[in-house]
Amino acid sequence: MQAVQYLRPTLYITCFFTLVMAAAMLIPAAVDLYDRHLDWQVFVASAAVVAGLSILGIVATRHPMPRFTVRFGFLMTTVLWVVTAIVCALPFYFSEVRITFAEAVFESMSGLTTTGSTILVGLDRLPRGILLWRAMLQGIGGIGIIAIGLFLFPFLRIGGMQLFRTESSDRSDKIMPRMIQITAALCGIYLGLIFLCAFAYAVLGMTPFDAITHALATVSTGGVSTHDASFGAFDSPAILWVASFFMMTGGVPLILLIGLAFHRRTALFRDVQVRTFFGIIVFSSLALALWRWWGDQHGFFDALTHATFNVVSVVTTTGFVSQDYTVWGPLSVGIFFFLTFVGGCSGSTAGGIKIYRLVILWQALSRSVQRLLYPNSVVPMRYGDRVVEPEVFESVVVFLIAFVGLIVVMSLLLCTVSGLDLMTSLSGVATAFCNVGPGIGPLIGPAGTFAPLDDFATVVLTVAMLLGRLEIMTVLVLFTGAFWRS
Amino acid sequence: MQAVQYLRPTLYITCFFTLVMAAAMLIPAAVDLYDRHLDWQVFVASAAVVAGLSILGIVATRHPMPRFTVRFGFLMTTVLWVVTAIVCALPFYFSEVRITFAEAVFESMSGLTTTGSTILVGLDRLPRGILLWRAMLQGIGGIGIIAIGLFLFPFLRIGGMQLFRTESSDRSDKIMPRMIQITAALCGIYLGLIFLCAFAYAVLGMTPFDAITHALATVSTGGVSTHDASFGAFDSPAILWVASFFMMTGGVPLILLIGLAFHRRTALFRDVQVRTFFGIIVFSSLALALWRWWGDQHGFFDALTHATFNVVSVVTTTGFVSQDYTVWGPLSVGIFFFLTFVGGCSGSTAGGIKIYRLVILWQALSRSVQRLLYPNSVVPMRYGDRVVEPEVFESVVVFLIAFVGLIVVMSLLLCTVSGLDLMTSLSGVATAFCNVGPGIGPLIGPAGTFAPLDDFATVVLTVAMLLGRLEIMTVLVLFTGAFWRS
Repeated sequence: MQAVQYLRPTLYITCFFTLVMAAAMLIPAAVDLYDRHLDWQVFVASAAVVAGLSILGIVATRHPMPRFTVRFGFLMTTVLWVVTAIVCALPFYFSEVRITFAEAVFESMSGLTTTGSTILVGLDRLPRGILLWRAMLQGIGGIGIIAIGLFLFPFLRIGGMQLFRTESSDRSDKIMPRMIQITAALCGIYLGLIFLCAFAYAVLGMTPFDAITHALATVSTGGVSTHDASFGAFDSPAILWVASFFMMTGGVPLILLIGLAFHRRTALFRDVQVRTFFGIIVFSSLALALWRWWGDQHGFFDALTHATFNVVSVVTTTGFVSQDYTVWGPLSVGIFFFLTFVGGCSGSTAGGIKIYRLVILWQALSRSVQRLLYPNSVVPMRYGDRVVEPEVFESVVVFLIAFVGLIVVMSLLLCTVSGLDLMTSLSGVATAFCNVGPGIGPLIGPAGTFAPLDDFATVVLTVAMLLGRLEIMTVLVLFTGAFWRS
Repeated sequence: MQAVQYLRPTLYITCFFTLVMAAAMLIPAAVDLYDRHLDWQVFVASAAVVAGLSILGIVATRHPMPRFTVRFGFLMTTVLWVVTAIVCALPFYFSEVRITFAEAVFESMSGLTTTGSTILVGLDRLPRGILLWRAMLQGIGGIGIIAIGLFLFPFLRIGGMQLFRTESSDRSDKIMPRMIQITAALCGIYLGLIFLCAFAYAVLGMTPFDAITHALATVSTGGVSTHDASFGAFDSPAILWVASFFMMTGGVPLILLIGLAFHRRTALFRDVQVRTFFGIIVFSSLALALWRWWGDQHGFFDALTHATFNVVSVVTTTGFVSQDYTVWGPLSVGIFFFLTFVGGCSGSTAGGIKIYRLVILWQALSRSVQRLLYPNSVVPMRYGDRVVEPEVFESVVVFLIAFVGLIVVMSLLLCTVSGLDLMTSLSGVATAFCNVGPGIGPLIGPAGTFAPLDDFATVVLTVAMLLGRLEIMTVLVLFTGAFWRS
């Protein structure tokens, strides 16, 4: 079957999703109506248009479903994400905020990809409907990427994710064998975490609205806030620690959390990926805290609180900010820049390179030393107790080649067309690609927003967010001739 | 045989090399004596000390040579390079220039690794002996790395260089089958290029001394100059084009130049690595020239001359400078930053990632797209008309893992201990690792020198130059327990 023929069923499925998003728009509409803010009309009108078009689309493309192939998978994932982002941008574009359509799509894509970069300024004065909509997009995008990462990416065999096929598709696995059950459990624990997080926030003094929106953005490792100062608006170490905890739950494989929650299985703590993840967080936080404590006469607990919060925020690719860490000094800028690339665990809502790829690279490095000294030795590459097949290794490497290559090209584009300096371009593309949120520099750093960028840069970064979220190859493959040939 | 037992023959060989370097010191001594500059005493005294110690060392470690193994190869290469760098630093340390010993070793290592970074300021006022010494180190280091790259690295199987085993070890190859002949031809063409380059420089108006020193630094892709302004001191487009030409000859595989010169074999122009090398240079130079021409009202020829010269200088990892290209704007900063990593061809004096690795990565990327769509297809990875074995691919990847990992760690060290900003640290480590020369930023950029850095940064960058020059793994493997176990 030719790839073009998959367009019809792809649109069919997409229209179902946009219909759901239309329904979701009624929630912020209700909030604005309750607040007696006229923006409710924007949400209702957008919902009506989207719902109408979706139903027309469903009717027009109704068709028996073809067999699910990799081509169908690539096309559906990309189209679904792009169309949903455009549809969800409508409320931003038509709201009282004056932004271009490119900026509206940027904001929407930043939400759905759980990036958390924003082109909006003056969040504290915005109507609550739009603030809730941003947080809802992150919640929806988060569970979406977990489902795709668990069921689809291993099937598409991109970025070395085939390594995780067994976790969900191996029949001998005792953790809820069937897909429906797993999905239900995933949604259950995801919503449970959001609820717990919101409850904790509220207990610690947030308003119920702030608690709910920030919980949505925390557990999804999204990072949008209802305040320009992000978590700097809440002067509470307890809130920062609670947020750090829930960001971390969002950065570990959710499937292992299910095992822990429902079966008291402690595989979570033995997982090589999870251990490395916590190792990186602890090491970076302690290094930064000690360095600030020693250099700046900060209290150690205060330094540790802010170091941990911001390190966790960047490593889990959330992007919340409690302070402008770029003024902490060159080490801080360096650590946060490099941590931007790291990312959380596979099977979580976190983006970036992801820990399992770093673990595999490290394995390759240590194995190669042995092979240099004993050229005839045959040592399999290992990931935990599994053997990493050459195909998986190559898949990981290819992801990184595309990752680095695209970051270089996109950075140079921003330097050239938008005239941004190298560090702003590079960190901007990196933070978009890794779905983190803040970049480095006075414009897009932790104290800034993406509002000053021109439309060209906005579009490039929107594409970067999409590419990063869909593990690059899903999108890239659509731009090859081979994909469209039969 | 245990690795420790190789120390004795390693020192034996090293002492022969240092004896040669002692003899070489007599040449700048003669120049200073001719100039009636008292620095001749420094060179003669250094030569005497080094010669004496070398002869003592040779006598003390005389021993039947063991069979040549990979362990012997790793140990000898690293020790040879480190000891030679320290020995060659003596004239810098004891000369009239007031520098620390760390800085003297930096300068010496920068020469021998053909990096070309300098901690000396006021070059134009320095005695000619020391200027000649710097250029001679580059000439000697250049031919040294070609020999090691041709005969040793493929044997040690590091960084994917085993791909080039056939070029020198395949008996069916008609190009001068024997090693001695190849070495003689290499030295011949290398000296011939230096002579031609010096002659061209002199014809175009350089003083004979400038012509010789710059020719040594050009063909070896080293990049030290006798003027603080580097090639900015010669206001001549013709000189810039001649320099660009000879830097490019230094960046292509010398063995292919032999084929061209002695056998009229045009393999040079069909080589995938050489084609990519020229492609990158032409594309980057044209892009920069057009951009400046369009933006700054520069004459196109003038813009093209300086763009080409500086692009060639960075891609070949020479490091000459004709203008401060960081003031050309963000695109220029971006291009030169990323070009710093690229490097020339294997089998040349150029450092960096090197073109053949980039070609292999590109092959992996394009092949993987096909494998995503046709999971059962078996397409071998190709480099030109050769098949890239999985072992070679892994070796290339491992080089890059170590490359990126060490750059990150060293950059963070410079940020932390020396308090340098991220861009200075990152570009400084990159330029040292890739043996290029100038970094980015006001301190170490094309208009600056490495003089302002503290001793810690100087040592870190010296180590980086050594690691980069010896393809990382040669040095790294010595720091593993496995190396020293029997």
